[in-house]
Amino acid sequence: MNAETFAERRRRAGDAAEAAGLAGLLVSPGPDLAYLTGHTPPPLERLTMLLLVTGREPILVVPALERLLAEHAPGAAGLEMLDWRDGEDPYRHVARALPAGRYAVTDQTWASHLLELDHATADCLFVAAGKILPLLRAVKDADEVDRLRAAGRAADATFDDVVQLAFAGRRELDVAADLERLLRSHGHQRVDFTIVGAGPNSASPHHHAGERPIEVGDAVVMDFGGVLNGYCSDLTRTVVVGEPADELRRVHEVVRAAQQAAFEATRPGVAAGEVDRAARTVIAEAGYADRFLHRTGHGIGLEVHEPPYIVEGDTTPLIAGMTFSDEPGIYLEGRFGVRIEDQVVVTDAGADRLNDAVRDLLPVV
Amino acid sequence: MNAETFAERRRRAGDAAEAAGLAGLLVSPGPDLAYLTGHTPPPLERLTMLLLVTGREPILVVPALERLLAEHAPGAAGLEMLDWRDGEDPYRHVARALPAGRYAVTDQTWASHLLELDHATADCLFVAAGKILPLLRAVKDADEVDRLRAAGRAADATFDDVVQLAFAGRRELDVAADLERLLRSHGHQRVDFTIVGAGPNSASPHHHAGERPIEVGDAVVMDFGGVLNGYCSDLTRTVVVGEPADELRRVHEVVRAAQQAAFEATRPGVAAGEVDRAARTVIAEAGYADRFLHRTGHGIGLEVHEPPYIVEGDTTPLIAGMTFSDEPGIYLEGRFGVRIEDQVVVTDAGADRLNDAVRDLLPVV
Repeated sequence: MNAETFAERRRRAGDAAEAAGLAGLLVSPGPDLAYLTGHTPPPLERLTMLLLVTGREPILVVPALERLLAEHAPGAAGLEMLDWRDGEDPYRHVARALPAGRYAVTDQTWASHLLELDHATADCLFVAAGKILPLLRAVKDADEVDRLRAAGRAADATFDDVVQLAFAGRRELDVAADLERLLRSHGHQRVDFTIVGAGPNSASPHHHAGERPIEVGDAVVMDFGGVLNGYCSDLTRTVVVGEPADELRRVHEVVRAAQQAAFEATRPGVAAGEVDRAARTVIAEAGYADRFLHRTGHGIGLEVHEPPYIVEGDTTPLIAGMTFSDEPGIYLEGRFGVRIEDQVVVTDAGADRLNDAVRDLLPVV
Repeated sequence: MNAETFAERRRRAGDAAEAAGLAGLLVSPGPDLAYLTGHTPPPLERLTMLLLVTGREPILVVPALERLLAEHAPGAAGLEMLDWRDGEDPYRHVARALPAGRYAVTDQTWASHLLELDHATADCLFVAAGKILPLLRAVKDADEVDRLRAAGRAADATFDDVVQLAFAGRRELDVAADLERLLRSHGHQRVDFTIVGAGPNSASPHHHAGERPIEVGDAVVMDFGGVLNGYCSDLTRTVVVGEPADELRRVHEVVRAAQQAAFEATRPGVAAGEVDRAARTVIAEAGYADRFLHRTGHGIGLEVHEPPYIVEGDTTPLIAGMTFSDEPGIYLEGRFGVRIEDQVVVTDAGADRLNDAVRDLLPVV
């Protein structure tokens, strides 16, 4: 991605802000700053902020000790750098650069920065960028889809490898360590989560892998992902140790059918909430409506959760190039849970999966 | 750390909030929530928030899919759980639980959550916890100091190992990968940063390790750390490939003397800014005042940067049990930089270092 790509993204963001009646957009470290500048400092207590003010050239406010780093960011061309030193008040720099008006601030901006900014400015109002400009990063270009596909393939390969290993008698933590190692061996630079929930723990959707030894008969939910070349993976499969009990087999079939229904409902122009509805209907008809504890999916890209959200009632129309998870689940507290998750990309005709790992209830040993 | 430790911390936080004239403290995922409950979900778009309201029992607002996880947190005893499902509005739950008044919100709360909360409440005002209650986690108990010491020892061992390896002809990225591997082999569960800046890159304090091959004569700044048993490490040393040029040797001596001066200035009752002053004076007297681009240090604990900040003008009096970095540096743009960083703990009599790696300008090959 060259400097022009970043400059074009900033122009598009600026135009969208203006069209939304905003005086500008204020961007903090994290995926939004990475998307618009390629600059990726850790979000910390020192203020770094990109100011996209309507009708002006973009300004990047940076701590003095990170100025050189910022100047070398891939999208730095065309950014005016405004640096400040420890002990100075960076919020006054920002306040001086902001004409009166309403500004969107990116969602992950720290509350401490927002409150200081609010204090330092007299005639500025702040709104959440995710609410007023939710789709800035939602439609991916071909290069981004390629990167997501590569991350998805690496997650698939990780799953293919992990089911060859022993499960019974080992701890959830051991399998989680395997997943981390395999994700890295398949090219991930960063591993963000390795959920392994066995037996009753599989009914806790975001369970932290723990000391529990995995037993024969257990359902095991594995939900794992990280970052490969800047873009995220996020894959979930449910396996069984040995032979599945009848109800586990049945629940798995329901979840699989729900996941397929959501996939088939995905095409341009359909509301995000309709995709959720497709999965939810299958699960409700099987009698598990209140055991589907979460939405059907979330967008994915530079961030593992980002718009669009595939959630009941959401009217956002899908657009070709949007990428998100399709991950219904059923959770029977105290007994077991099942979730199946792929990433998908909306195409002109419908949707493509970015994951191809087998979706059967695979037996492991 | 047992449930009583967490309950006691919550009582202390509640008392501090009341003493500061607040109606309560609102705590988001991250180090503050971990400190007060042991619950460590990733900070995401779904609202998780601990409500410590004066005169009431604490309430933990959690997404339904993370309720089981929250109930199993080490500090969950005594928390009322209030869960909400995707598609519901969690901010209304919070608004109903908050009497009118002024609340501190923890610094890392996402702006999007704060703005929604502000919108959902009528008579609530919000201030940054880091501004009004900065020292909630600043004074460590014996167990916390032990953990920081263990993390520091692992960082020291990592340095001892890395200087045995070849530098000349390899890339900064290769040395960064060595540091990551070594930190893990010495017990780190997570590696957060591995800054390796060689030659002119050593003058960029937060340089990202890159493709530059390291050359004979280069100064190499290595600043690395992560998490071991929940607590952070953060160590910086500057080495030289082969024989140092005279100015590098001289600058290193100045930084080392400044680092020692800050250490010797550290004791209970001294203002944080005085410790900064001690290091800054040594550097200024050597003629490099404007090449010391940052403060002398930052607190460390569950977070790698946290209060107290050792920064010019800060009047916070040091207290035994506070832990922070002592890390002056001199950066000559386009040429080289030097930084030396240890973590220290304030004791009744003065201070102890939590790092013992050699502070000489070590030659590497």
